[in-house]
Amino acid sequence: MSGRHGAGRVTLVGGGPGSEELMTVGGVRALADADVVLYDRLAPHTLLPRLSPGALLIDVGKKPGHHPISQHGIELLMIDHARSGAHVVRLKGGDPYVLGRGGEEVLACRAAGIPVTVLSGVTSAIAVPAAAGIPLTHRGVSHMFTVVSGHDPLSDDELRHLVGLGGTIVVLMGVSTLPQLVAGLRRHGMTATIPIAIIERGHSDEQKTTISDIDGIVDAAALAGVGAPAVLVIGEVVRLAHDGNDEADRILRRAESLTEI
Amino acid sequence: MSGRHGAGRVTLVGGGPGSEELMTVGGVRALADADVVLYDRLAPHTLLPRLSPGALLIDVGKKPGHHPISQHGIELLMIDHARSGAHVVRLKGGDPYVLGRGGEEVLACRAAGIPVTVLSGVTSAIAVPAAAGIPLTHRGVSHMFTVVSGHDPLSDDELRHLVGLGGTIVVLMGVSTLPQLVAGLRRHGMTATIPIAIIERGHSDEQKTTISDIDGIVDAAALAGVGAPAVLVIGEVVRLAHDGNDEADRILRRAESLTEI
Repeated sequence: MSGRHGAGRVTLVGGGPGSEELMTVGGVRALADADVVLYDRLAPHTLLPRLSPGALLIDVGKKPGHHPISQHGIELLMIDHARSGAHVVRLKGGDPYVLGRGGEEVLACRAAGIPVTVLSGVTSAIAVPAAAGIPLTHRGVSHMFTVVSGHDPLSDDELRHLVGLGGTIVVLMGVSTLPQLVAGLRRHGMTATIPIAIIERGHSDEQKTTISDIDGIVDAAALAGVGAPAVLVIGEVVRLAHDGNDEADRILRRAESLTEI
Repeated sequence: MSGRHGAGRVTLVGGGPGSEELMTVGGVRALADADVVLYDRLAPHTLLPRLSPGALLIDVGKKPGHHPISQHGIELLMIDHARSGAHVVRLKGGDPYVLGRGGEEVLACRAAGIPVTVLSGVTSAIAVPAAAGIPLTHRGVSHMFTVVSGHDPLSDDELRHLVGLGGTIVVLMGVSTLPQLVAGLRRHGMTATIPIAIIERGHSDEQKTTISDIDGIVDAAALAGVGAPAVLVIGEVVRLAHDGNDEADRILRRAESLTEI
């Protein structure tokens, strides 16, 4: 079908939030067929020795503050291996098209004349809140959600319209910009009692949920020592949270006492 | 582990957009273990005889205009089977927590004292645009997206803030309300040349993409005979669409001539 014996190609695989059970059937098949796997820090890479036993595994992960391989370097590596005839799997955390630069990698392959396929994945934007019992939509509570990157601060226009929209807000890569985000949302009129959840290391054994209202979350996050990677969820759906964790349940009772839905 | 020999329980499974390759590993395992499967119209139910060979398969799908089983009826059925000791899999299209009423079914189980687990899925909101080559975010084009139900018309406030936000907009269940949506977005200042894609029957052999600008889409949809189920994507990322379909490529060239990104 592919690999060293045929023409090279690239498959972008959304690896989901980190557990094998939330990988896709197609993603597992692609990994089994891969000659080379280029994986990110947030991709489920600990599974690779088992899922891609014969493949060359290359860590192209970018830790905050460290950039071992640039985005351009990743694209060149991907294309070079495919040109040599390999089936290259580019394994990403979550979904390749949700703040994952998958679109750029597809364009790079197409520009180089390399056949490329995208296999969507389970996005952390939905599955990490779900792991804390939080549905992004819920009848009578919210019929929409917005997913946004917290990597760069949002503009005043964006903050104003996010508040006005009134739907659930999900922020990826938002731990380091949390204080600016909260201050911006409050400045643009978000009610002080809107609940917010920060779910760290979702779908791992160290998953931890911190919940407060928008005015209390910066202190609560400092107290809990919150760090990346984490997913932020802002909106009334947070009151539906439950994850069987006693500490989270205690914080939740406080959140629940604010307003019952 | 479960089933007729143990205590009953419920697993909500996000079945993805319809193809087996976009089902999760955990979802397939849950189906293999199920005693009873309650499935929706948009769930990948044609695979069930193979994936759940021993299970009782119950169609609780609601076709537009037909309501064979009410939401309350589905919840009672789920709980009754679990009470009788069955492992009940509730198979939904896409993700259970994205406009899928999964939150209500979880609350119903918890109120009835039935153990319930949610397995996230690949949402059609992301994977169906991906099947037409459209990334919901793309560096320099869009760093956020909003997913909204088109089942009921959006309020003027919602329309205004969606336009103001300037991110990608994804509408599920939006075919029948398309004219109101487009009129509302234009009324609140959306630029006439913003491109919009309607992807019908994503991830099936009959997938079809119709692309136009916001002012031309109602006519284009009528001409193409667009019908549900379909996913709507509005925003500059639509210009990245490609699906190898000649007709779509022709319409795309028209869209591309509007503005180059």
